[in-house]
Amino acid sequence: MTTALPLTERTAPGTTGCCAPVTGVPLSLQEAERLAAALKAVAEPTRLRLLSLVAAHEGQEACVCDLTEPVGLSQPTVSHHLKVLVDAGLLEREKRGVWAYYRLVRGRLEDLARALAPTP
Amino acid sequence: MTTALPLTERTAPGTTGCCAPVTGVPLSLQEAERLAAALKAVAEPTRLRLLSLVAAHEGQEACVCDLTEPVGLSQPTVSHHLKVLVDAGLLEREKRGVWAYYRLVRGRLEDLARALAPTP
Repeated sequence: MTTALPLTERTAPGTTGCCAPVTGVPLSLQEAERLAAALKAVAEPTRLRLLSLVAAHEGQEACVCDLTEPVGLSQPTVSHHLKVLVDAGLLEREKRGVWAYYRLVRGRLEDLARALAPTP
Repeated sequence: MTTALPLTERTAPGTTGCCAPVTGVPLSLQEAERLAAALKAVAEPTRLRLLSLVAAHEGQEACVCDLTEPVGLSQPTVSHHLKVLVDAGLLEREKRGVWAYYRLVRGRLEDLARALAPTP
């Protein structure tokens, strides 16, 4: 089961999977806004820690019940941050029984990294 | 002439030049805060466009006088955004005569990119 992947939906021809690269041809306002929105989703300490915790879990997937204690925040707060990451296409969410599970979307962090600095 | 490079000053042993990577070992709060601060500097459309314009200029250096018209903002606003990028260690500033020149700091965008996704 997959959720919406806004970064993919916003893909324009000639971009690196999600966003046009910073170096090379100067970014248009639209390209800069798209990349800034994707970067804003990760430019927050709790969200970086959540991504990092999910990435370190077996299968790069974790239950929300495994994430609240390590970041020391309430489940509603953690769920809010996870939703921002899902909306940005960085995580996929799947409900199984009473818990929601979050999985790292392959290639999304790499897309963002390539937009900041193309790999040689 | 070089200005302060906060991303370098914040470098901790075992990091990728500026920040610990998101994937691998889960980020500590301090590591996440450091990386989030660096990402926040670039997670803004005008600043991405300014970085992109400087990068596309000859020698990856541009006068502030070359940057105001392409982004369509006043010089004080542009100078504010440039200062944020200098403070984050992404640009170096040099005053020559009446104008300030901004140069891309080699390797900084690459450091940020590697923190998001280590290159294979």
